[in-house]
Amino acid sequence: MQQTAPLSPEHFWETITGFQRSAAMKSAVELEIFTKIAEGNKTAKQIAEACGAVERGIRILCDSMTVMGFLTKENGEYGLTEESAAFLDKNSMMYLGGTVDFILSPMQKRGFEDLTDAVIKGGSTVTKEGSLEPESPMWVKFARGMVGMMMPSAQMIAANIGFEPDQKLKVLDIAAGHGIFGIVVAQHYKNAEIYALDWANVLQVATENAERFGVADRHHLIEGSAFDVDFGEGYDIVLLTNFLHHFDQQTNEDLLRKIYQSLADGGKVLTLEFIPNDDRVSPPSEAMFSLVMLAATPAGDAYTFAELKEMCENAGFSRNEHIPLAPMPQHLVISMK
Amino acid sequence: MQQTAPLSPEHFWETITGFQRSAAMKSAVELEIFTKIAEGNKTAKQIAEACGAVERGIRILCDSMTVMGFLTKENGEYGLTEESAAFLDKNSMMYLGGTVDFILSPMQKRGFEDLTDAVIKGGSTVTKEGSLEPESPMWVKFARGMVGMMMPSAQMIAANIGFEPDQKLKVLDIAAGHGIFGIVVAQHYKNAEIYALDWANVLQVATENAERFGVADRHHLIEGSAFDVDFGEGYDIVLLTNFLHHFDQQTNEDLLRKIYQSLADGGKVLTLEFIPNDDRVSPPSEAMFSLVMLAATPAGDAYTFAELKEMCENAGFSRNEHIPLAPMPQHLVISMK
Repeated sequence: MQQTAPLSPEHFWETITGFQRSAAMKSAVELEIFTKIAEGNKTAKQIAEACGAVERGIRILCDSMTVMGFLTKENGEYGLTEESAAFLDKNSMMYLGGTVDFILSPMQKRGFEDLTDAVIKGGSTVTKEGSLEPESPMWVKFARGMVGMMMPSAQMIAANIGFEPDQKLKVLDIAAGHGIFGIVVAQHYKNAEIYALDWANVLQVATENAERFGVADRHHLIEGSAFDVDFGEGYDIVLLTNFLHHFDQQTNEDLLRKIYQSLADGGKVLTLEFIPNDDRVSPPSEAMFSLVMLAATPAGDAYTFAELKEMCENAGFSRNEHIPLAPMPQHLVISMK
Repeated sequence: MQQTAPLSPEHFWETITGFQRSAAMKSAVELEIFTKIAEGNKTAKQIAEACGAVERGIRILCDSMTVMGFLTKENGEYGLTEESAAFLDKNSMMYLGGTVDFILSPMQKRGFEDLTDAVIKGGSTVTKEGSLEPESPMWVKFARGMVGMMMPSAQMIAANIGFEPDQKLKVLDIAAGHGIFGIVVAQHYKNAEIYALDWANVLQVATENAERFGVADRHHLIEGSAFDVDFGEGYDIVLLTNFLHHFDQQTNEDLLRKIYQSLADGGKVLTLEFIPNDDRVSPPSEAMFSLVMLAATPAGDAYTFAELKEMCENAGFSRNEHIPLAPMPQHLVISMK
């Protein structure tokens, strides 16, 4: 006879205490404990001295990180796991700690504070300094914090462009943010000129990155809202990354129509999105993103490919291809003019 | 050759987005979606109508609950899982939804907002309306929300008392809260008189529960702080549940000495605590509790049995027994006078 485990509220408990683990990771990153451990500090006392904190606080924080699987502990000495060495040591090329500045910023958390009201209303209750406000400082945080997390997708986009390597390309990078999507295209295509569009405060970050990655001479700026400014014309490529999910379908269709007009014949728009299956509950990360949009925007969503295809078709794009970028949760849609 | 999975930041991502899942569960409980589904509402439209919310908001929330494993979804119809039917339907005897009122209350979350400062300082930065304030409304929320979660421990305590069933017992229930620990002892021991000690506002909840469980005639109240009020004397049992973790060792020793004085010869104190192993990083739930105390108290901790034993011995208790209550994360220490 098969024995079944007794029913336990463990998963429920893990879920409602998840905010505690988010906060612990934010503190661990802010205090740079992973970096300090990588630098040779092993005991709570040593790490505390290196971090300028009280030993008791560091002991409790490091123990929690050990329970959560981000540190090892043996004979009172802490060590990094493979994952934390790669992603949480500030001196690692793959450092992702900066994401906490965005994901766990007061601005991002605010929508979730009022989530019940957002569910009742069917959209975010955040009205001031929301994600859609001009010059919202949220997007500077995004631009600064999310480069590492977005780099794999940026590489995949560049790999899917499909033009000849030495071709002259005019590229519009809409809501460029950190600028990394256009910048990586510029690295792959030596004759590509990038036009990065975003709020002026955000473009400062993109400009810094263009310099850092050595493509500043081919990186141009268009300041303002994608809905208001003149794009210009003759683009071979339009990069539309992490943008459509903030808006309703009609708004997106209007924007896609404007993009269509700005493209040269044979041009294409590459849309990067969280795209759940038609059931809207798989794959997990893509499907969960809908909740983030409910919390943060009036009418945004994680759209299915069928929905995105319909928007693109209504805007004039007759050929639309869906390319999942697994294991990353983001997908690419390539729409041809 | 063994293939290893490529290094992924998935666990880090899950961790920093944990607050989103906590918020989603809080909303699902507040809107009673599990109860509405149990009552026969299946589609997002039906559930939305039953909850008084917009369909779009409910669809996104229910999809997130499905991704998280608390709902099923087939052909657009949602259903309860075994776990959510048991613990999240308000009409279930095992309903635990009320715990979100405490665990995710602004008061509980506040300490985690400032966790980095708490680590630096080695104790909570919350100074007003903190957990140790007289008449803190936090403990009314605790008393109302945590009965279900504490019931298994209450049953285990009563089962470990070890006196004859019809024996006359004088029982002191320190920081009684919901009162359930003393109440369950009163149910097991028909000749037990319970003296529940807590703030007056909290004792209202204990009194309600004593009536509900049919032991009101043997349930007496002592209003005030355990550190200040006169306990009286001649107790056979002192229940010291979820209390010591809020304070430093010296404070606990002083309290245990006061308890020792109040006990009759042959009396015993039953201490309920999260007790991690000496390594302080196992078992997971016990070890993680230390972080909750760092966030919420100036000097509290999840003490090891060695530490608790030392406090008890210094207070005069020479025989101290450690009884884990697995699968629950709380443990019992029985100290004999």
